[in-house]
Formats: sequence, structure tokens, C-alpha cells
Amino acid sequence: MKRKEFRKLISVEKAREIMNSLQVLPEKEKFAIENVHGKILAEDIIAEINVPPFARAIMDGYALRAEDTYACSETEPARLKVLGSIPAGSDARFTVSAGEAVEIATGAPIPEGADSVVMVEYSSEENGTVLIYKPVTVGENIMKAGSDILKGERVLRAGRKLGTREIGVLASVGKNDIPVLKLQVGIISTGDELVSPGEKLARGQIYDANSYTLCAGVQECGASPMLYGIVKDDETIMRRALETAVSECALILTSGSTSSGAGDVIYRLIDEMGETLAHGINIKPGKPVVIGIIKSVPVIGLPGNPTSALIIFNEFVAPLIRKALGAGDELKRVENGVMSTNFRSEGRQQLLPVGLVRGRVYPADRGSGAITSLSEADGFIEIPSSTEFVEAGTPIEVTLFGDVEKPDLLIAGGFCPGLDLLEDLSGLRFRTLYTGSSGGFSAIASNTADIAGVNMPSRDSRGEDGILYNIPTIENMGLSDVVLVKGYRREVGLIVRQDSPITKLSDLLGKRLINRNLGSGTRALLDLKIAELAAEKGISKKEFMDSIPGYISGAKSEAAICDAVASGKAEAGVGKRNCAEKNHLKFIKFAEEDYDFLIRKEMLETPEVHKFLETLNSAEFASKLPKGLHVYERTGEIISFE
Amino acid sequence: MKRKEFRKLISVEKAREIMNSLQVLPEKEKFAIENVHGKILAEDIIAEINVPPFARAIMDGYALRAEDTYACSETEPARLKVLGSIPAGSDARFTVSAGEAVEIATGAPIPEGADSVVMVEYSSEENGTVLIYKPVTVGENIMKAGSDILKGERVLRAGRKLGTREIGVLASVGKNDIPVLKLQVGIISTGDELVSPGEKLARGQIYDANSYTLCAGVQECGASPMLYGIVKDDETIMRRALETAVSECALILTSGSTSSGAGDVIYRLIDEMGETLAHGINIKPGKPVVIGIIKSVPVIGLPGNPTSALIIFNEFVAPLIRKALGAGDELKRVENGVMSTNFRSEGRQQLLPVGLVRGRVYPADRGSGAITSLSEADGFIEIPSSTEFVEAGTPIEVTLFGDVEKPDLLIAGGFCPGLDLLEDLSGLRFRTLYTGSSGGFSAIASNTADIAGVNMPSRDSRGEDGILYNIPTIENMGLSDVVLVKGYRREVGLIVRQDSPITKLSDLLGKRLINRNLGSGTRALLDLKIAELAAEKGISKKEFMDSIPGYISGAKSEAAICDAVASGKAEAGVGKRNCAEKNHLKFIKFAEEDYDFLIRKEMLETPEVHKFLETLNSAEFASKLPKGLHVYERTGEIISFE
Repeated sequence: MKRKEFRKLISVEKAREIMNSLQVLPEKEKFAIENVHGKILAEDIIAEINVPPFARAIMDGYALRAEDTYACSETEPARLKVLGSIPAGSDARFTVSAGEAVEIATGAPIPEGADSVVMVEYSSEENGTVLIYKPVTVGENIMKAGSDILKGERVLRAGRKLGTREIGVLASVGKNDIPVLKLQVGIISTGDELVSPGEKLARGQIYDANSYTLCAGVQECGASPMLYGIVKDDETIMRRALETAVSECALILTSGSTSSGAGDVIYRLIDEMGETLAHGINIKPGKPVVIGIIKSVPVIGLPGNPTSALIIFNEFVAPLIRKALGAGDELKRVENGVMSTNFRSEGRQQLLPVGLVRGRVYPADRGSGAITSLSEADGFIEIPSSTEFVEAGTPIEVTLFGDVEKPDLLIAGGFCPGLDLLEDLSGLRFRTLYTGSSGGFSAIASNTADIAGVNMPSRDSRGEDGILYNIPTIENMGLSDVVLVKGYRREVGLIVRQDSPITKLSDLLGKRLINRNLGSGTRALLDLKIAELAAEKGISKKEFMDSIPGYISGAKSEAAICDAVASGKAEAGVGKRNCAEKNHLKFIKFAEEDYDFLIRKEMLETPEVHKFLETLNSAEFASKLPKGLHVYERTGEIISFE
Repeated sequence: MKRKEFRKLISVEKAREIMNSLQVLPEKEKFAIENVHGKILAEDIIAEINVPPFARAIMDGYALRAEDTYACSETEPARLKVLGSIPAGSDARFTVSAGEAVEIATGAPIPEGADSVVMVEYSSEENGTVLIYKPVTVGENIMKAGSDILKGERVLRAGRKLGTREIGVLASVGKNDIPVLKLQVGIISTGDELVSPGEKLARGQIYDANSYTLCAGVQECGASPMLYGIVKDDETIMRRALETAVSECALILTSGSTSSGAGDVIYRLIDEMGETLAHGINIKPGKPVVIGIIKSVPVIGLPGNPTSALIIFNEFVAPLIRKALGAGDELKRVENGVMSTNFRSEGRQQLLPVGLVRGRVYPADRGSGAITSLSEADGFIEIPSSTEFVEAGTPIEVTLFGDVEKPDLLIAGGFCPGLDLLEDLSGLRFRTLYTGSSGGFSAIASNTADIAGVNMPSRDSRGEDGILYNIPTIENMGLSDVVLVKGYRREVGLIVRQDSPITKLSDLLGKRLINRNLGSGTRALLDLKIAELAAEKGISKKEFMDSIPGYISGAKSEAAICDAVASGKAEAGVGKRNCAEKNHLKFIKFAEEDYDFLIRKEMLETPEVHKFLETLNSAEFASKLPKGLHVYERTGEIISFE
């Protein structure tokens, strides 16, 4: 039997060692002071002046000799001759002797001979004489020259990240052209299936995300990204791109084309143009990683999958860039959380993408194990190879994808525009995973969501027209630590073109249907309605379904259903009114379903769920629901289960 | 008696209420996706495609019907006819029926009819037939269309801050021109004494720091600063500047010119051009703050002092900008610490600038009470009016000036280039406060520094030549929780012009001297040497000193001393060799002094002090010390005190 030869993967420790040995050398460039925020200082800054450069008054008043005021009081003021006045910014020169004073403004230089300032509040002036009512001590209300920064002092060291305070120090010592580090990082995306955002997708193509996530990641580390765009899996084109990048950058990142499959061009080119130091790190998802050097410029090949690329970037590349810029791990964003659910590992060391919601850590794989979704990952956790099982409740450290805004509530279940409205009106941040109603129930059962939006119908005599929503499913699954909050009602119907002959459910016979996917509550509802119709007609449900071509199809979204109907691929679909009307299609209502919220009981008392329910019950929510959705008398009702 | 009328200050609560009522309205603008990192999304983003747009292979292998593999094994492989091959990015179309397979690359679209992918590792192909050695299940190694993002789903909500992950989501759904919020904030510095960094300072002038600290602060909040530069305290010029800014910005910040003294132009202009909502907040340093509106654009007048301006900006203005951009307080950087020293408040509510070193909070006022130093403040703490005394050890919350890099060690004492070298070689970050040796002893006594660099001589029979360094001062102060670590030796001498007739100390008689300030160890050493000389000559020390003009002068730095000598203002100064030589002056050595480190005993076991001492004892440190400084046999010796 043929088995492909696999290269030898290096250990994580070895990979770190290699990364640590790489020389990434930043250049210097000068920027005007208003443009250096967040950049890294390239040289020591030595103060060439004292700050302040001269002794200044810190109050409006009179500069004088403290001695002259020692005996004064409110009743027996000192009387001093006023020599003149020094406004701020003035270079007027006076010499104050015993019995004399000079009027002075805040910030103005203290005249020679004066050793203190009396606040104007404790003085009065008339006819060139000032009366002082309160004694001062030597140095009072004077800021001495150099009391903030001394001439010759090193005020900022090379390598310092420039924040507001550092920029204030640079300005105070009069620096304008600021020498900062520039670390140009070249970014190349590879893959014949990639298209740039903004362009049109052809069949088989996807948008290039890695160019932009890596660009942002590089910026977050304080370096300057340089995008070389998408390069096809072609040796000649790729060689040219690498040559250009190597001549312009201190570090090159590529992504894609590193598998041992069809298009592994990158690592062969590095071998040919330079030296490959490693190919494959023994940590999931590090297998495709290539580390090499071309003309003394390090080249790192990252995985093609965007989440994997971002994980490897954060774990192995970001420290390299930060080190080159003289910054430490304080830029690494780490947070502690606890696992929300049991997680079974493959027994291989891995960096698992996770979501982080209110300190709870959720594997960001929608339960599929294989697929990682960038939109729902806030960062990643490390699982050692010795760990086969991470139990719910285990404390765990999450490395975040930079400065991420984390959600307030994790919501799974069926898609509904009402959820977006709840988010907008509540001011909460939702992370919504559209898993279908079935997936929503599972997510609550496995403790991987806070709330599920569900519309799962069952034939049940307790329900209106013999259909009861969600409760039978909860009972069948034996869920007990949950409550069901009644949500709102949604019109469900057939979606057809405006000129379609179809006007009712039974017209579907012989017509091509685009159905929702298995697990969708709407599909389950259609199943029940078709069974009713079949019973009326005296035929079996299966026979009825078989005579509707496409009944077994399964579109994951209503948008896809509308597309199929509008384009003529199907003659009818199933969905909600607002989606049909938005797509200028005809909507033929056949039912009203309940869209409810399944909530883990322990969440009920959290401020987030309070706010959620308050919004659900609000008049504003009721009035703003899109057409085809409406609240009713049971909205907000809470049903418990024992 | 005349007392100036003060306006009524409003309470902090009232000020917040007014700030909250202000309307700051951002605009929208579009940016290419590579330029939106850190910006705020202006509109909801709805996915117009599924991500991925089609079912994709996630492994290299063969797309087939799972059914065909159920019975296969290593010994009895399934044999399927290979219809062709689909590379990534290909739009090749095949229809896979029973008994058939298509070779497929990672990322390529799954052909019609196929429901799973067998990894290439479990297959072998020859003459158009593939042998499959391992069964797969339906859906295996396939990523379904829309499994990451569903078409029609709202993937990002308006107001979201765009980090790496969000940018990845935008790219994945093909967005290129990204609508983001733009909030233009106008910044005006006022004051006749101000000069822009890079320009030349005349007498009485200082550099404008506020334009740049506020610029950076505004950027840190995600808004766009617009600098209007320095505007003189002149109604006509200021009115013109305000008119321009109001027509271009959503918010205006001014600083300076808000006191009730000479130049309070701003608040009179706001009154005239619009409406003043408040003038003065009853919290130190909020007294000069003005809040007003001109043509519906809020105008905030901040204090002129850079530290005060930054405090008021962070406390009152930053929340306003963040709110306008839809961001919450997660951008506010707060850290908990404990007070390092007792602090006596004025009984007035105040925001006190502080340094934060390893969780310890130090008032950033160098003990002066009145002067706040921007270079040593990491943020500020709030002290309520009811608190008269904050005890050392009290837990306290610090609001940081944005993303600040905090120091590892706080070092006070006399200036020495050896300290910069210690910092560079140790890799530690020092905050050095050049307080002179006396100030160093006080900072250790009051627990406001970790280490003090000291060179304070005393006449003491235990010392070489009858002079002992630092130990007598420690004994006199009764310090016991400290150790003294012997540092290195420094040549001290007279600094004169190259053509000076002065060649020894006694030549100083009748010559104008520029002396160091009181509290400087070097000045104390000169005092001792002069006393010796006076004794030799049989005159009193006072008499000797009186016959050296300028003996009572006090320059805070050696740089200032060299300036005075080089410019001819003085004929001699006192200082160290390297400073003299750097300024091309002549150095006449009269002593070698000990520069030691006074360390709080509890700090000895910290990794930072370990590293500090390790560096002090290193050969590299010894070899790199500037000329005139050298380690000796006692370097690193630790002396304890009971």
C-alpha cells in the first residue's frame, strides 16, 4: 500500500529556538512628532535643555524677596515698590532688590534677585506700590529650572514605545524629527483559489483573508506591513515575488502553498533560493509551517487557513517582531478563563482556537472538530500532547488575537433578524452562531452557548393545531438546567417568483423545491405540514415528499434559498416573509411558528441576560421587529423544567 | 484687603453630567481594508456571500461517495474509477456517481455527487483507478458552504473596533472599501510663552507639549487629531483659530489661557461666540477647565500644565470621544496598586499624578507638592475631599495615561552616566529621578524610590583621607531597613576653559565659580576640600568661601556648569571628567569620590535588584564605564545597618 512520505516535524521548543536565532534587523526613519504615536524610538534621547529652561512663576502674583514678607500680616501688610510687570513669554529683565517687587504672570521667568512669588490673591496694588498680606517662604510658587528634566539627562531610551506621555517628554525637550524604528514585513498570500476582497468571485474561488489579518497583526506589533498581494502557485511568479520582497523587507511572511499536496512551491523555492531551517512544527496547526532564510532575510511560511495562520503568527512570529523592535511580551494579550465544556483532544499538542465570553472559554469549532471559524475565535489555548481530555471548569490561559472586543453573550441556534434587533437595542454584544435550531439545543446541552434561539416544532396535542414548539425537544433531550423564554412569532411560508403558478403547499407536487438543511426548525415545520397534507390526500408522507424534486436538498440560509428561487434553480423555497420581500419574491404563508429562547438556568441572574430579557419585553423591540415577525401575549414568559 | 473674586467651581458629578450631554458627532469615511486596523466600523456589515462560498475539500485526496468505502480495508481496498482532478481554484465540473472518484486538492470545490473526501494517505492510484484503504463517513474532510459565515448574516455591527480578527472577517466576505467613523478633534495650544518643538527657544519661552500629548491621546481613543498649532493670547487671532476649527472639527480642545490671570481669553471668547456651560471643576487640577459650545461644536479648555492637561483629558474628555465612537470603557487603562508612601492631601478632591512601579504607586511630584513632572507620571489616582491622609500600603486604582510602558525600578539620587550604562546592560527599565544625593536619601527614607545613587561625603576618621561616603549620612538619618551597595569611583575636579590660568583648588580665590546646588554630593565634597585648604592656610572656611565669587550659586546639572564655564559666565565649575571633556573643557581632578547604591532591604531579593547587582558586578559594565569612572575592589560589596 502506498503511503506518502511525511517530513519530520520539529518540536515546539526547537521551533522557538530557531525563531529566536533569526536576525530581523529594523531600519531607522524620522517622523514629525505628531506622527510617532505607537512607534518605537530608534535612539536615546538626551535633553539638550533644562525643562523648564528657566525658573518660572507657577502662579499669577508678585516676584519678590521672601525676606521682605516675613513680618507682614493681613493687618500689617508689607509695602513694596513695583518695578514693572513680566507677562508669560516675555524676556523683560528686572533686578529685584530689598523692598521691591515685580508683577508676574504664571509661566513668566522669575526676575533676578527675586526668590519667591506671592499669589495675587494676597496682594493689592496702588500707585506703584504693592501691599502683601501673607508671608511666603524662599522658593514658594516658583518652579526651578530643570526641575522636570535636566539638561544632559537621557530622557528616553532607544526601544521605548512612544505613548502620550513619552511624546510629551519629546516635545518638552524640543524634539521634532523623531528617529523611530521601521521594520518592514513583507506579506505574500499564495493559492490559485484566492481573490482579493472587492473583486468578483468565480466558482471555486475564495477571498484572501490572510494578507489582511497578517497586515493588521504586523501593525499591532508596531512594524510596517508591505503587501505583495496574491501570488499564484507558480515557481517563476513566486520566485520573482520572493526576490522583490527580500530586497525590500526585513522579514517575509507567506501563507498557503505549504502542504505536501499539489502546490507546495514555497518550501522548494526557499530551499533553492536560500536555506530551509524547518518544515513543519509538531503542534496543530503547525504542520505546514516553513522557516527559512533567503539572502539573510527570514521567510516564514504560514498555513493557508486564516485561523491557523493567525494562531501561528501570534505564537511564533509576533514574539520575533516584538523582539526585533525591542519590545517585550507586554504586547502579548493574555487572559485567564475556565473551560465551558469538556474537550477531547487528539492526543497531539495543539493550539486550539477558542472564544472567550465573560471568562468562559469555548472551542471555536462549532463542534465540527475540523473547521475553525475566524469570526468566532477570540484567541487560542495550548493543549499539551499529554492531555487527552480537558474537563469543563478547568482554568486555562487564552492568548488573544491582539486587542479583541469580546462578546457579552454567546448565542446559538436558528438565524433570525430579530436577534440583530435585540443586540442593537440592548447595547449588548452578541456572538451569534447560526447552527440551526438543532445545533442550538446541542450547544445549550454541551454548555457551549449561553442562549439558543430555537423554533423546533413537534406534533404534540398540547400545542395549537397539534404543533408544540421546543418543549417536546427539551423533554426528549432531558434538559433540566434550562429555562425556555417564549420569544415572538414568525410567519413561515413558501418563497416563489412573482409570476409563479404556485399559490399553496399542495401546488409543490412535481415542482423543484429548495429546502432548508436538516436540523433547521423551518424544515421540520415543513415536514409536519407535508405529513398533514399527505394524510388529507390519503398518501404516505414519503410518497408525497418523493414527488417534490429537491425536497432532500438543504440550504443553510434563507438567503441561499432566495438566490436559488430568484435564479430559477428551484421553483420554490421555504422561509420567512422579510427575506422573501427583500429579494422581491412572493411569499405564501403556511404557518406561524414560535421562535423562543433556551437559556441556561444559571445565566438567568446575570446582568447580561437581564438586559436581554428586558429588551425582549420592551415596547421598542415590539415596534421595530421586521414585517412578518411579531411579539404576542406570551412573549417573555419563562417556562422551567424539572 | 483686596481678594480676587473667584468664579463658582462646579462639582465633578455636574461636570460629568455636562460632558455626557455634549453631542460629538462623527462622520463616515471609507478606507481600503489594509488601512483600517484600530478604526471603528461605521455601518453594519452583512455577508453577501457564504464563507466558504462552496463546499471545499480540507485535505488533499479523493472526492467520492462515502457509501463506496464502507466495506473497504487495508487488505481489501475499494477500487474506484478516477474521473479527473480538481486543483484549488479550479472550476472543473464533474459528477461523481457510484464507483467513481475525483482527485481533489485542499481548498478545491467538492464535485457534484461526492459527499466526502478520503485523504491521499489512505489511497493509491494507478492507471485511472484509485484504491481506497480506509472508509470515510458522509461529510468527512469537507467544509460545507456557509459553515463559517452565512450569506445574509450580519457579521460585524457598526461601532465595532477593527482588530486582526474583524479584518479577517471583512476580507473573508470580500469587503474592500470599509466604512469607518472619523471623528476630527481640533487641538489648539495657547500661550505667549510657547514655541513649537524643533524651533529655537528665546529667553522666557518653553516648548509646547500639549499639542502633541493631546494629539496622541486623541489617536489612542480612535479619533483623528487636527493640530491648529500655537495661538497667541490675542482675541482676534484666537477668534479666527476657533472659527476655523469649529468649521472643520466635531470637538475642539484648547489648552492654556484659562486661568483668571493675565490671559484668560478662551472663556471670554466662548461666551461671546457661543455658550459657556462651565468654568472650573472643583477637583485639582480642574480649576482652569472651560466647557462650552460654539455653533453646536463642543469646545473644552484644558489647563496649560502638560500633566494637568493630560489628567483632565483622560478623566473627562477621553470618555466623551470614546462614547462618540461607540466604544466603551474597555479602552480606559486602569491598574491596581498600593501606595508606596504616606500622602497628605490638601483636603480638596484631587487627581494626583503618580508613577506605578511593580504595583507600587508613587506621587509623581518629586516631593515638591506643587510641581508635577510629566516624565515620571504613568497615570493618576483620585483622592476624595474627605481623605486627608493616604497611608502607605493602601490599595488604590491608577488610571494610566493610555498604553504606558512602566519602569522596573525607580531610582533617585545624583546624576551619573554610569546609571544609564547599568540600565542598558541590565535590560531593565529605570525611572531615574535626579534629585541629588540628599534627595536620594530622602526618597529611600520616605519609601518613594527603590534605589538611590549617592555620593555624599562626610568628615569621618573611618574613611580614606578622613572622608567617608554615605555611611555617616545613613547613620545620622537612622535608616535601618536599607543596605548600601558599594558602587564605583568617580574623578571629581574643577572644570575650566582650556586657556584658564587655574590649575589647582587654591587658584579659585577671587575667581567666579559656578557651584553645584545644595544637596549635591559633589558640592559637599568641594566644601570639605575647601575647609581642608582653609585650615592649611589658617583662615576660616567661611572667609575662604566668601572670597570665591559665586560659591553660593547652585547649578542643578553638570551640563549647566559646563555651559556657564564655556560661555564665560563663570571661570570655573565643579564636576566629573567625562562631562568636561565632552564639552572640550579642561578637567583638574581634586578627588575621587565613591558613588554607591542605597537600596531598601526588602528589595534585595527581587529579580530586578538581582539583575541590577549582577550587572554592576559584570566585566562588561567595568569595561564600558566612561572615562573618569572606574570599578574597584569594593564594587558590589553589601553593607548592612542595624
